[in-house]
Amino acid sequence: MRAAIGTENRTLTTLDHSALELSEIRHMTDAALDEFLDRKSLTAASHQMLELVETLRGFLSSGGKRIRPVMCLCGWYAAGGKETPRPVVKAAASLELFHACALIHDDVMDNSDARRGRLTLHRLLAERHRRRDPPGNAERFGTNAAILLGDLALAWSDEMFHTAGLSPAQVQAALPMLDAMRSEVMFGQYLDLLGTGRPTGDVGEALMASRFKTAKYTVERPLHIGAALAGSGPAIRDALTAYALPVGEAFQLRDDLLGVFGDSRQTGKPVDDDLREGKCTVLMALAVARADAAQLRVLRSLVGCSDLDAEEADAIRDVLVSTGARSVVDQMITSRCRRALGVLDRAPFPLPATNALRRLAHSASVRTS
Amino acid sequence: MRAAIGTENRTLTTLDHSALELSEIRHMTDAALDEFLDRKSLTAASHQMLELVETLRGFLSSGGKRIRPVMCLCGWYAAGGKETPRPVVKAAASLELFHACALIHDDVMDNSDARRGRLTLHRLLAERHRRRDPPGNAERFGTNAAILLGDLALAWSDEMFHTAGLSPAQVQAALPMLDAMRSEVMFGQYLDLLGTGRPTGDVGEALMASRFKTAKYTVERPLHIGAALAGSGPAIRDALTAYALPVGEAFQLRDDLLGVFGDSRQTGKPVDDDLREGKCTVLMALAVARADAAQLRVLRSLVGCSDLDAEEADAIRDVLVSTGARSVVDQMITSRCRRALGVLDRAPFPLPATNALRRLAHSASVRTS
Repeated sequence: MRAAIGTENRTLTTLDHSALELSEIRHMTDAALDEFLDRKSLTAASHQMLELVETLRGFLSSGGKRIRPVMCLCGWYAAGGKETPRPVVKAAASLELFHACALIHDDVMDNSDARRGRLTLHRLLAERHRRRDPPGNAERFGTNAAILLGDLALAWSDEMFHTAGLSPAQVQAALPMLDAMRSEVMFGQYLDLLGTGRPTGDVGEALMASRFKTAKYTVERPLHIGAALAGSGPAIRDALTAYALPVGEAFQLRDDLLGVFGDSRQTGKPVDDDLREGKCTVLMALAVARADAAQLRVLRSLVGCSDLDAEEADAIRDVLVSTGARSVVDQMITSRCRRALGVLDRAPFPLPATNALRRLAHSASVRTS
Repeated sequence: MRAAIGTENRTLTTLDHSALELSEIRHMTDAALDEFLDRKSLTAASHQMLELVETLRGFLSSGGKRIRPVMCLCGWYAAGGKETPRPVVKAAASLELFHACALIHDDVMDNSDARRGRLTLHRLLAERHRRRDPPGNAERFGTNAAILLGDLALAWSDEMFHTAGLSPAQVQAALPMLDAMRSEVMFGQYLDLLGTGRPTGDVGEALMASRFKTAKYTVERPLHIGAALAGSGPAIRDALTAYALPVGEAFQLRDDLLGVFGDSRQTGKPVDDDLREGKCTVLMALAVARADAAQLRVLRSLVGCSDLDAEEADAIRDVLVSTGARSVVDQMITSRCRRALGVLDRAPFPLPATNALRRLAHSASVRTS
């Protein structure tokens, strides 16, 4: 059952500071997560507890870009952090455990079948339960065990953070950012829930949701946490925010486009789930706001239908294109990335950090998965 | 919407150390929770965030015995803590926020309609959503918003703990206990899930689940946290464990009896839900283990049926009585309480703490709600 997280199981090494290789950061993150879960395996009170640990390890090893740990370490370097001390890597990696909770619960809430091209965790747990033929309803077991495992990942992210070996001053500086991150993402998710169902043309609400659930959660706060660990002041923090919010919004806008126009073989998510859910994305809000009467009828009658077929999904896509919503979103992504790159031109960050952030901004605008 | 937690909205005061009034501890806990949520209200980014805060306040103010904060403060006094400093009260109260997560998610997992004689949180949220006539499916909204609000309560319990104003030494001493508590309860809940469905006669598994999900979570670890805050050593901690495990098991065994034989007007929970769920309690495992062929047929065919009617529930109850399972559980409660009281006779705790723990052990054995 034991499978190391990441393709290579490297031990923690220090980064070559002149290069700031993002793939190296990902390896360090995975090694730290493996080490944390190894300790949990060793101290497991019984085979059932071991099963929980290894299920979580399996989920973490099934993929993911480690974007929050990467941002956290970029924040560390941006604020002048030297080398990459193990405690800082562990603190950064703890964000991935928090994110595991967010993803696992998100999949339960969306009732999704697939993530990263594999079964979602609640489906996997249901399947495993069914094969064992124990008592009870397998679907329900899967959902409930996934809720619990998400809670455990949340509690463990906190444990991983505060057992990382940071100095009291580092903990003191980073905790308010971590607290803000956790509240903000829950709030963003709540806004998302409130908007889900029938499409509305409220672009402002959709942007606010994307700002909280993605821009602040995925980019701004991880950068702030890393910078706080390096002892940064408000000037660095403000520059990071000025970069983070446009990049994070671009990231979510690209995600919204991929959810509707992307190739599910690349995204790893089922086709058209966003349309069936009736997710109130900026893309959809723009289409509703710009639609004529006939286009509006298509959106109102089809978006949010749980039994949407391929032809109906195509009809929605036609409206997203013909209203110009798709190209407006494309322009929004481009202008946000440009704004973020402009911030980097003036930002007081060391060059390796600036270069890494530049690459990340670029990947937000062009990614396909 | 704003409703203060608890029936009286007192400010934090120091306890009269000679008396150790449990009701006073509950008032202090509620005041600390109110104060924390007041700060969250004041800093809410929008009316939707405010809504989340006040929904959580409403849930907390709907009742509950505050048993974990009470145990935490008993641990503090047992280990020689003087007065009741505000940071210690806040740390104790943070356990109630964690427990809010556990209850909210538990009700989602059990698909329960009522708690404390009111709608469960996911039902309340669904109802509210339905009245507003927004887009989407109200039931699903309720479930998903409750999952999120549970996550938020978990994150905030941690925030409340680390912003309580404890000294670094106190934080250092208490965090391992808090970490253990969080992992243990998730593990206990997972054992519970694994056993739910068809009844089995595995009394050992049922006892292990009750030990993790209740005895350690509700009694032992809160006592340890309070004692750690007071700077206790291993002797005090071991004495607390010797008291806590039997009391906690008695507490869960009483809960199992109330779930089947209790008066739902007093318990606030719907009648016969435990039987419909097929909860694998010690009571049920004992009945299965002691049943003859005819009794076993009754249990196997009825326990875990979601459409169980009153007559069928009575048939199960008859078997629980006629196999002697009910009276064995009663004896187990009595012997565990006696064991815990015996520990108190020899324990090195100050008298007010010993007296409070004695009262708590007694209430575990005789409570009706």
